[in-house]
Amino acid sequence: MSITASARERFLGVWGPLRDELVAYLEGEKMPADAVSWFKQSLDHNTPGGKLNRGISVVDTVQILKGSELTDDEYKRAAILGWCIELLQAYFLVADDMMDQSITRRGQPCWYKVENVGNIAINDSFMLEAAIYYLLKKHFRQEKYYVDLLEIFHETTFQTEMGQLIDLITAPEDSVDLSKFSLDKHHLIVVYKTAFYSFYLPVALAMQMSGVTNEASYKKALDILLPLGEYFQVQDDYLDCYGKPEQIGKIGTDILDNKCGWLINTAIGIATPEQRKVLDENYGQKDAKCEAAVKAVFLELELPARFEQYEADSYKRINALIESIPEQGEEGLKREVFQSFLAKVYKRQK
Amino acid sequence: MSITASARERFLGVWGPLRDELVAYLEGEKMPADAVSWFKQSLDHNTPGGKLNRGISVVDTVQILKGSELTDDEYKRAAILGWCIELLQAYFLVADDMMDQSITRRGQPCWYKVENVGNIAINDSFMLEAAIYYLLKKHFRQEKYYVDLLEIFHETTFQTEMGQLIDLITAPEDSVDLSKFSLDKHHLIVVYKTAFYSFYLPVALAMQMSGVTNEASYKKALDILLPLGEYFQVQDDYLDCYGKPEQIGKIGTDILDNKCGWLINTAIGIATPEQRKVLDENYGQKDAKCEAAVKAVFLELELPARFEQYEADSYKRINALIESIPEQGEEGLKREVFQSFLAKVYKRQK
Repeated sequence: MSITASARERFLGVWGPLRDELVAYLEGEKMPADAVSWFKQSLDHNTPGGKLNRGISVVDTVQILKGSELTDDEYKRAAILGWCIELLQAYFLVADDMMDQSITRRGQPCWYKVENVGNIAINDSFMLEAAIYYLLKKHFRQEKYYVDLLEIFHETTFQTEMGQLIDLITAPEDSVDLSKFSLDKHHLIVVYKTAFYSFYLPVALAMQMSGVTNEASYKKALDILLPLGEYFQVQDDYLDCYGKPEQIGKIGTDILDNKCGWLINTAIGIATPEQRKVLDENYGQKDAKCEAAVKAVFLELELPARFEQYEADSYKRINALIESIPEQGEEGLKREVFQSFLAKVYKRQK
Repeated sequence: MSITASARERFLGVWGPLRDELVAYLEGEKMPADAVSWFKQSLDHNTPGGKLNRGISVVDTVQILKGSELTDDEYKRAAILGWCIELLQAYFLVADDMMDQSITRRGQPCWYKVENVGNIAINDSFMLEAAIYYLLKKHFRQEKYYVDLLEIFHETTFQTEMGQLIDLITAPEDSVDLSKFSLDKHHLIVVYKTAFYSFYLPVALAMQMSGVTNEASYKKALDILLPLGEYFQVQDDYLDCYGKPEQIGKIGTDILDNKCGWLINTAIGIATPEQRKVLDENYGQKDAKCEAAVKAVFLELELPARFEQYEADSYKRINALIESIPEQGEEGLKREVFQSFLAKVYKRQK
């Protein structure tokens, strides 16, 4: 997804003050200086530094729903909700990196790999989550929709954790068993682990802030945003194998890591017994030759062409969903909210 | 603290149905059978099985505040809040055991040590926390005090995590530096890491359920329960060294583990330079001779007698705080709530 540099900069400008509020809270509780400084470093290391798509989506959606420029105060409040999503993401990523034994994230060491951090990162991840509710209380307690914000965060958090659980037990890095994989399983993982918090959550928060109260609008948004999130993740899976490293900023390792991605799940649905044998024997092995054998089967199965077809179908299907919103919009729904998401995602190369 | 077997049994009787509600939620979300069964095992392995003091305190406090027998429905609702504290505790303990690299907990393997679990336990701990908010929403959403329950859990969670952070960076198991220790630091760790969630939280939840709305009562309860929690933890520290293993159910390892406990902090406040040297050289070493050297200094410094004095002083001080509540009680406060806590704790041998 592409975000303009100035949009990014403005959003980043809200982070410093929020980080300072959190740090001031610990100071106010008379925490020792080394603990305060530790927390500050954890906040800064783990929260900004990503693409910020999710956070900025909140601002963009509030803007579209309002239909005119946001005041500075409106911008700031939307950005705070956006940063709460980025904190939620930080909470997940610090833990994911430990569970995956990753080394780097966003071009720097994973937090648990930073000197002296180690397993303390588990508690640090907890504190990143706790920061969300501190900020929501501080800035939104007086709002009628405060309790709705809390519930949306609680539910989305639980859903993401369920998705993470299915993923972890379906595709453990050290034990390959493709019989556990399927496109249905992939769908479930992607929707729960990614789509709820990355696509539905920003829009739902923006709708709350914009005063949308009818449940039907939230349901409708969900029905569009979950497929959109799934499409986004399938692209991610595709790009891991076929994207240009200089564009996607990394060398994909999904095949080596036994990831339960769209390519392998599509492949096992259509492979001949011989091809399946190659996949069983070579998928998830930490070996470049095995990876090459898997990639060869992927080409035999014409996965790039199948992805193009998937992409075209998704685009059509999601557009149809968007067009089912009436021209004048429904309460809290405007086609543009979803069109803007889809435009950012469609045919992305990174 | 002593709890009658029948009180324990009745409280445990509420767990099964609650666990089933959580499991049913995952089933309703169409999670695969292996994920549902994994979550169920995590819930059962990590949530009941402890002393259940915290959970049962909620029930006891609601009962005292009501002043007559609870109806079955009132009992159940108080017990649900109690189980939410036990889930919070489970969330912390699963993570603490990983951070401390512990082997057993409550006479069984730590969750992360169970076959195939490993680092997935991080996500499992997250799900234990998420379960709290699922249950609160399901059972308390219609109550005026619902948002207060959410906030009490959020704040107590954050406070406990702060306490854990100070503890982790003050007393890492592999790097002994007694210059970081002090009774002030110990006070801070104990209050944040233990007293808020173990003593204040059960009473605050019970007060909410009993309809107490004035903030002053919560403040007053806090002012009594934090010292009580601190006293409880100091006993724990004392018993780790001087308790009878057959009574406390374990062989204490605080000296070997570089724990920032009351004994070492009291010792360093009064040790001669020679004694301090012995402590510096022998505390936190995984060696029985070092442990014995530390224990010898503890005896030279007459720590058992000092503890007795501390215990007598604490008892007096906490009683005075309790007696500052008027005979007829104030809104949501009855001396008996606190007397009952103190009676369970005073001079305990396990």
